[in-house]
Parts: sequence; structure tokens; C-alpha cells
Amino acid sequence: MNIRSNPETTRAAVTTGALPSSKKIYANPTAAPELRVPLREIILSEAASEPNLPVYDTSGPYTDPNVVIDVNKGLPRPRTEWVKERGGVEQYEGRDIKPEDNGNVGAAHAAKAFTAHHQPLRGLSDAPITQYEFAKRGIITKEMIYVAERENLGRKQQLERAEAALADGESFGAAVPAFITPEFVRDEIARGRAIIPANINHGELEPMIIGRNFLTKINANIGNSAVTSSVEEEVDKMVWAIRWGADTVMDLSTGRNIHTTREWILRNSPVPIGTVPIYQALEKCEGDPVKLTWELYKDTLIEQAEQGVDYFTIHAGVRLQYIHLTASRVTGIVSRGGSIMAKWCLAHHKESFLYTHFDEICDLMRKYDVSFSLGDGLRPGSIADANDRAQFAELETLGELTKIAWDKGCQVMIEGPGHVPMHKIKINMDKQLKECGEAPFYTLGPLTTDIAPGYDHITSGIGAAMIGWFGCAMLCYVTPKEHLGLPDRNDVKTGVITYKIAAHAADLAKGHPAAQLRDDALSRARFEFRWQDQFNLGLDPDTAQAFHDETLPKDAHKVAHFCSMCGPKFCSMKITQDVRDYAAGLGDNEKAALYPVGHAGMTISGTIEDGMAQMSAKFKEMGSSVYLDAEKVKESNKALS
Amino acid sequence: MNIRSNPETTRAAVTTGALPSSKKIYANPTAAPELRVPLREIILSEAASEPNLPVYDTSGPYTDPNVVIDVNKGLPRPRTEWVKERGGVEQYEGRDIKPEDNGNVGAAHAAKAFTAHHQPLRGLSDAPITQYEFAKRGIITKEMIYVAERENLGRKQQLERAEAALADGESFGAAVPAFITPEFVRDEIARGRAIIPANINHGELEPMIIGRNFLTKINANIGNSAVTSSVEEEVDKMVWAIRWGADTVMDLSTGRNIHTTREWILRNSPVPIGTVPIYQALEKCEGDPVKLTWELYKDTLIEQAEQGVDYFTIHAGVRLQYIHLTASRVTGIVSRGGSIMAKWCLAHHKESFLYTHFDEICDLMRKYDVSFSLGDGLRPGSIADANDRAQFAELETLGELTKIAWDKGCQVMIEGPGHVPMHKIKINMDKQLKECGEAPFYTLGPLTTDIAPGYDHITSGIGAAMIGWFGCAMLCYVTPKEHLGLPDRNDVKTGVITYKIAAHAADLAKGHPAAQLRDDALSRARFEFRWQDQFNLGLDPDTAQAFHDETLPKDAHKVAHFCSMCGPKFCSMKITQDVRDYAAGLGDNEKAALYPVGHAGMTISGTIEDGMAQMSAKFKEMGSSVYLDAEKVKESNKALS
Repeated sequence: MNIRSNPETTRAAVTTGALPSSKKIYANPTAAPELRVPLREIILSEAASEPNLPVYDTSGPYTDPNVVIDVNKGLPRPRTEWVKERGGVEQYEGRDIKPEDNGNVGAAHAAKAFTAHHQPLRGLSDAPITQYEFAKRGIITKEMIYVAERENLGRKQQLERAEAALADGESFGAAVPAFITPEFVRDEIARGRAIIPANINHGELEPMIIGRNFLTKINANIGNSAVTSSVEEEVDKMVWAIRWGADTVMDLSTGRNIHTTREWILRNSPVPIGTVPIYQALEKCEGDPVKLTWELYKDTLIEQAEQGVDYFTIHAGVRLQYIHLTASRVTGIVSRGGSIMAKWCLAHHKESFLYTHFDEICDLMRKYDVSFSLGDGLRPGSIADANDRAQFAELETLGELTKIAWDKGCQVMIEGPGHVPMHKIKINMDKQLKECGEAPFYTLGPLTTDIAPGYDHITSGIGAAMIGWFGCAMLCYVTPKEHLGLPDRNDVKTGVITYKIAAHAADLAKGHPAAQLRDDALSRARFEFRWQDQFNLGLDPDTAQAFHDETLPKDAHKVAHFCSMCGPKFCSMKITQDVRDYAAGLGDNEKAALYPVGHAGMTISGTIEDGMAQMSAKFKEMGSSVYLDAEKVKESNKALS
Repeated sequence: MNIRSNPETTRAAVTTGALPSSKKIYANPTAAPELRVPLREIILSEAASEPNLPVYDTSGPYTDPNVVIDVNKGLPRPRTEWVKERGGVEQYEGRDIKPEDNGNVGAAHAAKAFTAHHQPLRGLSDAPITQYEFAKRGIITKEMIYVAERENLGRKQQLERAEAALADGESFGAAVPAFITPEFVRDEIARGRAIIPANINHGELEPMIIGRNFLTKINANIGNSAVTSSVEEEVDKMVWAIRWGADTVMDLSTGRNIHTTREWILRNSPVPIGTVPIYQALEKCEGDPVKLTWELYKDTLIEQAEQGVDYFTIHAGVRLQYIHLTASRVTGIVSRGGSIMAKWCLAHHKESFLYTHFDEICDLMRKYDVSFSLGDGLRPGSIADANDRAQFAELETLGELTKIAWDKGCQVMIEGPGHVPMHKIKINMDKQLKECGEAPFYTLGPLTTDIAPGYDHITSGIGAAMIGWFGCAMLCYVTPKEHLGLPDRNDVKTGVITYKIAAHAADLAKGHPAAQLRDDALSRARFEFRWQDQFNLGLDPDTAQAFHDETLPKDAHKVAHFCSMCGPKFCSMKITQDVRDYAAGLGDNEKAALYPVGHAGMTISGTIEDGMAQMSAKFKEMGSSVYLDAEKVKESNKALS
């Protein structure tokens, strides 16, 4: 390797330390107590009469005060042992790093190479290697045990409550269980309905699962380009993105230092890393799509698989015969991968080499358990082009390819749009489920209108929440800079928080058994004027506190029983509490007189918490019958009136 | 009046001047050519081969360079003449301003009184006064002609295109026509399905219409409180909110100077102003709900009606018998108006005076044509409380009251929640339509999760877009400061833009005939690298340009055929254009060979624009059959394959 050290450009500083009032905890699954499954416990104030709340934690060791972080060394690699102990893999020397892997960057601009070198692993041909193959053979891996524990969010097995929550949601045919078991995880993977993106060479990984019967996940895109940004910025963005909740990160780097950037990211990433290998392949032939070859592409796949990339976007559905379908579009082909392949196909007048070599791609990816993310190269780039023939023709082909990849033992998810108006989102979701045998859908947004550049996290957050509800398994974030520029650190955070909102709103609407626990905890904090708890239970405690400080900066206001909207003498929450206190102070006869139309059991006695506990069962019961559809609402109204 | 001038606090500076590359234009409706209906024309660059785009304009005279703005004098009052010329009204001295109208503010803190005084008008008992009464009698008012012109967005009567757009949407039983006529407006108002909030004393008003068969509207809340903000800030916020697209503004002031603040706002507002009169009534009895009386409330209604407030939020559905239904809620009663009335009802153990005096309230509001916004005092304040019995019991009462108000000749809309998870939004919308005879629904959000304080514009923007699609007529914005503090100028803008996105996404999904024109124009600009056009066609050109400048600050980049995401040698849009150019250069035989599975008519010839024009008819045709539901998609796929 011919790349010189250039320390100035790589002294990455990343954000470490816990979130406000949070503590990293680890759960030890019964099935494999040696595993340490991370959770974040949000510590409530003394005024709270309820336990601390555990929440899903994507942030990795960076928020554990007991771990010393050194990005130059990378994270520990405990998962390498899991892979080795189940066998079927060999360690080997691996491919040499070539100058073109980093865009033939000269010494002056070369980023410092990552210090440690790990010899890659690859599968031996006969033994099961991928999570899909293990699942098919009825074998539960440590990864499966790990994600089962993780998905339960630290709650005990409260089946009754969980079943009530499920009944209160509308999941459009998903099969979210009341409690996730390792066997359920295995079964979902075997059916192709979920994946655990987990390259055997990504030893730093904290496994996670993507599938519509699990918590809705989000992805954050980072990556340098020919125009701007550097290695340390990208590592910092990755750590920053997972701090706020990114479940996976895609490195979409183009330009120079592309191999080195990826190495730094992978060695420091506890979340799955995805890439679009055609981007790097293109860099290797001077940016000219016409010069791309299967050999060059294949070599790039091996290069990245050895590094530990967990999923590859492969645009194998952009077939020669579909390209003309885009000619009359308002925005043609907007996917980079799609347009590269379209140009190649037209220039050579040949079927895409990704399609003709798909078998070989499967064989290669299987050896490392790199998951497919079948790319939507013909996705719509505008409202006008949504759900058109080009998009759906490609989706049908992705369905075909899914089945081939499964036959080859690979894990598969499917990428989706893009720009789609609200009324076409469910059609798109339903078609994906049907064409692709329920393989997980992974969509960019979709953006529900084109008219708000600068706010596309919002135009797309709307579509993302909806498609998540309808069954999409992972939502790729869109930042405020979409269409305009490269996201900086703040944009990454805004994109991640927006998409955590979308994913959580989707989980709530689906009736995910544990989703509403956090909403309820935060709402109780809000109602009881526990300001710090309200901030800390939110997705972004820092911003919530800063906004509160802007209007009421004094510490005393953080325990004040009023808020800045109304002031001390005029506050609806205070008045409601007065109403409760007043009602609680009345005798039984008085209550009866006070509530002329009340029905049995609707009394308030004891503390507010007792009252809540008494009523919650009743409300849950009503919930399952009342809220699902208009007919049921009507019936319930009759019953209650 | 005993209030001294205090000039320092009232030298309001407001933002004037056109938006980037925009020009104020006025349309003259055929039915009343003397009316001047404002539109904003977005002027495209020379490179654009399409006409400039007219868009709806809420910004009033502030963006007209030919109008001299002086907030001390207020806006011109042309509408006063319309009211007088149709008769049935009398001018009278009006109520005296009392010290308690401004919270008994002392001289030191009194805001400067507004200089000009206009004697109020009120209806004479027999003649029709309200838009509803005129509509019922078959009379088309100038307000109706004005809004009909305004709703058509400056497009000519392109019925064919409009019908195709309507067919491509899903409006859930709304009846949006291809083109809005004054007669259609009259009919919708007569049916109670739309309102034109237009107090006869608001001469400065540029009329607008609220109803689900019209463009979805948004409201921005402003207002000072006991804790913070001042008169000039509120006038500035109002002008700022309408600059970015607020269709109405609610002045929710509490604290002191409440009458004076409202006078300044009204005299400078071209949009309808709404208020919650109970807030001011409460100020008049030292903030103690128990001391509220019907007489004090009635006096406040008269005070505000004479000033020209266009709609009142009246929480007349908070009945004594419903209050206990909230006792077990996670967040009790969160509406300020609702909690005030609940406290009053319990303290006196009496039915709400708003309910018992509802007839008198109608008679009073009718005399000024103040529209009802029937308040949802029992709206849910958390996901846990959504669509519960308390909320729906109140909604049923609002339905009863709607019919009473119509009988009295009043215009009515209905307020809605609040916090509602996605799967309960449509149930809520459908119940409102049914219970309230299709009177326009006007909702706050709803917020689709509770867990993101600091981002509630987004949690609620998701719900707002959805309920707008399902039939909600006006969306009340939520700013990032919701639950945390009072919105400043930036928050107001963020809230307005977010809600413009939601409203527009709703219009697109409903198939509003003109909505997609703007998306298409912007997407064409994006695809053709007309950067300035892309910025200017967006909802916030300033932010779009600033974001682009951050990555690529040079002016040359604003005409560059690449974007900062990919850099010059690697850009999907550029590649797509290359693909088109390449295809366009081929002969017919070559094309036939190139597109082995192409179907008739799918050729590209002439300019890109020609090609687009050729294909748009075909795509529209496909649109109406292809995109509506999954079955149709399937059929279409068969037909095309």
C-alpha cells in the first residue's frame, strides 16, 4: 500500500458521554447470559412516582462511561468470536489495497490509513454462513438472541398490557407479537420477512433487526464527496447520528479517500454500515459509466465485503428494457446508481451486468453475509413520476431477484422511493409486499410534495411515518439539505430526530406493545410539571431544555407549576389539577350529585396515581373496542350513552 | 379612556417587500371587475421555457411595492363599503373601552392606543347580515366572488387538466370541483360546508374561505402573555406569519394590553383574526374562573365583535356532565378554555353558561357576522387520551350546537385535537363530518406522538397532512416551542412553512386540480438545473438559497449543471440528461433496436419540452386508471406488460 500518513486530517474528535439523565445498562438474555444487550435507562426525578424508563439504544460504547474511546484503535470486536465459534468460516489474507481504491489520491491529500489491520473472514462453501441459512436450518444464532432481547425494550413480559396495545393499533396485516422471542426472530428471518445485516467481518457490530414485525428502524446517510468534507467529519457524523438514534448508517462517499474513509467508519461503528458499491466502482474508472466492467465491480464488492460492510445497495433491477419508460418523466432517473447503470446499458446496448451476473453477486455476498438492499434505480424524483410504470416494472424485477437471492442463502431488503403523494403511498407499500414476498421494505422518505426545498426532512417525514405505519421496515432519513447541499452535523441530527419521530409514530399506530410506554411517561411528566423529566424523556433533551430556557431561564421555573404559554395565574394544566383535587375532596353523595350522567366506576379516589391505575384497565378495555374503526366508535357511543 | 400614550413600546417595524423573484398581481373577477384579488406571480428565469407561476397570496398589501405601509394608520378598509352598500347594517357609537379591557394596566406599562377610531357597524334585525344568510337566500356577495377567484390560483379554466388531476386523487367523499365559481362558493356556504370568516367591522380583510372543497388552509397563533412579549412583537409576528402563508391568525393574548394589542393587529391585518374571548373575560375577573359571569363574557363578545374579530372560539361543548369523563385521563383537560369552563361548572355545580346562553351568543355573533369556531375544550393532550369518550361526547354536543347556530344564521366551524396517533385520525375526521353536518373541521395538528418536545411542528405536521387529506379544512399550526415556551419570529416561520407543507400535501393527495402545478414547475426547474427557479418556486426561497450557498457559495454554481451532493463529474441528473440526449440522437431504427420492449408512442423527439408535452397526456391518462388502488395497479400492469 502506497498511501502516506497524514495525521492532521484524521484526529477525529467524536461526541461521547451519556445523554442527559441517562444511564447505559446492559441486559443479559436468558438464552445466552454472556451477551450484553445495550439499553438506555432514562432516570426520572425524585418527584416521579414511577420507575425509570428503558429505551432502545443505538449509540454504542460512546455513551458508556466505562469504555475508553479511541477512534484510532476502533471499537472492540466481540462479535468476531461468535462468528468463529460457530465455524464454517476461514481467515485469509484478503485483497491488497490498490491506489484506485482511494481514487488514486496523491500523498498530499491522502487520509491517514487506519492503524489496525484485521485479516478478513469468509465462508467455506458448504457450511451455513448467513443468518438466513442458519434460520432456515432451525438454528438460533447469538445475533438472533441479541436482537430479540433488544426489541423488547427492557420491559418484562407483560403480556396482558402488550396484547391490549396491539389490539388498539392497526398494523395492516403485520404480525407483531406481544413479546419477541429468539425463535420468533429466527422464524421471521427464515421467512425472508426480516434481516439482521451483519457482515462476518464487522466484529464491532451490535446486531439489530429490520422487518415489519419489529420496531421501525431508521438509516442515516453520510459520506464525503468530490466537493467537500473529510474523513474525520464522516466518523464524527456517524457517531453523532447513532447518538440520536440512527439504526444503520450508509456511507455514500464518492471522490477520493473512499476506501480509507470507509475503514475508519467501519472500525468505529456499532451499527450496520451500508454502501452503494457502484459509486466506488465508478471512481475507479474516472467517473465514466461507460467504462464500468463486471470485473471491476466484482473486485469492489470483494474489497468492501472484506472490510465488513453489512449491506450493499445493488441496482440490479434497472434493466435495459425499462430505461425508455423514464424518458417522458418530469425528472427522469434521479437515483445515482440507476442513472449510472442506465447510461452503461444504453452505451453498450446490453442488459445490465448487475442483472446478468446476479447469481455470482449472490454467491459472493453470501460468503460474507452481506445483505442485499436491492436498489430502486428508477425511483420517482418528483410527485409527477410517482408509482409510474418505470418504478413498478423495476419493483417487479426486484421481486424476482429477491427469490433468487433467497435461494442462494442471502438476506434481502428492498429499497423504495422517493417522491410519492400521500394517496399513492399505501399502493406502493402493498405492491412491494406482494411482489417481493414480504421482504423488508426500506424507503427514502417518501417526500409528499416537491415544493419545500430546505424542509425536505418534513415533506418526507410525513411520508415516512405513513409508510412505516403501512409496513415499511426501515426509513432512510432525509435532511433539510436534501436537493441543496451536503448535510452537516446539525442537519444529520435534525434528519435523525425527524425520522425517529416518523418511526415512533408508525410503531404507535401499528400498536407496537411497548411504543406507547414512552409517550405515556412523557405525558405524565408534562401533566405533573416535572419539567426535567419531560425534557429527558424526549428524543432531544438538549433542544427541549434550550427552548424552555429561552422563555423561562431560571432554574426555579424547571419545578414551577406553570408554563410559559400561560403564566402563573392562568394555566390549563394547573386548573385541571385543581378540578381533580376539588373532585377528590367531595363525599360520595356529593360526587353522585355532581356527575349526573356518570357511569359506574368513574369515580376518583385516593391519589391521582391510584385513580390512573384504576382507570387505565377500563380505558384499555374501551381502547380495544372503541378506537379501531368508525363503526365500533358508533357502537361504543351507544353503549356508553 | 384612561390609557396614556407610550410610544417606545409601539413603533412596530414589520417586514415589507416582495418575496424573491415575486411580483404582486391582482385578478379582476368577471362577476365584479372592480375587485382586486391578490396573487403572487413567481417570475422564472430566462432559461425556463414555461410561463411564470401564479400562487395563492396571503401576505396582503405588505408585499405590494405600490402600497405605503404605516402600521400606525393601519391598512385601507375597502371592504367596509361592500358591507354598507348591501345594507342591513347601522353604524353606532359602540361600547366604551374600559380599564379592565386592558387588564387595568397602569400608565407605566400601557401600550399606545391605536390612533384611528372607526365607529362599529352592526346588523339590523331583519335583513340578512352573515355570509350564511346571504347564501341561504341565493345571494352571491362580493366576498364570495372574491374567494372564488382566489381559489382558482390564477389558472385559466383548463377543465380537462383539472379533471384528470381530480381523478388522480383520493378525496374521501369531498366534492372539489374542477373550477371554482361564485355560485359554487355560495352553495357550499349555504350547506354549511364552508365559511368566509368576515366580521362586518373588519374592513381591512381580504376574504378567504374555509371548507374541505377548497384549498386546505392554515392558521398561525400569536399573542402576548403575562410572562413575555409586547404589542409591536405581535403585530410583527402577524405580518411575518402571513408573509409565509398563514391564512388566518389567532390572537391568543392573555395578560395586560389585551384590547390594545388586538386593535393594532386587526387594523393591520388582511387575514381573518380569531380569538378565544374567554381568555380576556378571565383577565377581567383577576384570573379566577369561579368569578366568571355570563354578563362579563357577553360584554367581552361585544367588545371584540365591535373591533372586528372574525371568529370566536367558544367552548360551549364543555358540559357539566362530561367533566368527570376526563378525571382518569393521563393529561386531564389541556385546553385552556376547556379547563376554565370545567372549573366554573364544578365550582357552581351548574351547566356551562356558554351552553345555557348559546342562543344569545348566536344572536350577538350574527349581528356582526362573527363566525363560530366551536372549541374542543376536552381535546386529548396526549396519545393515551385520544378519541376517548370525553372528546367524542363534546364533539357530539358541538354537532347539536352547529345546527342551532345555523338556524340562527351564523357561520360555523369546529375545532379538533390535539394529540392523536395516526390510526385514530381518520376515525376522528369521519366522526366530525357525521356529527357536525360537514361543517368545516379546524384542527390543532394533531400530534402523532408525545415524545418529541422541541419538534412538535413535525410530530403534528404528520397528523395535519393526514387529517387535511381526510377532509380537515383548516390546520392550526404548532411551532417547535409547543409545550416549552412562546414562539418567537423564527418559530412562527417554521410553524407556518411546516403547515404549508402539510396543507399542500393534503391538497395533492385529494387531487386538487391546481395543486400539482407548483410541484411540477419546481421539479422541472430542479431537473433542468435552474437553481434560482428551484429556490424561488419553493415555500421558502431564502432558506433554500442559504443552504445551497453553504456548500457551493459561488454565483457560478447557481447555473452549474451539477449539485453539491455528487460534484461535477458524477451527477445522476446530468447522466439522465445525457441518456436523453443520446436517445434523441438515434434514428428510428436504432431506437426500435434499443428499446426492445417499448410500446407505441413512447419515443422521444424534438426538445425535452415537446417530449414532456407529448407524454404528459399519456401519463395523465394512465394516472387516472393506474394509481388509485392496488387492484387497478395490477390491471394496469397486465395491460402494459
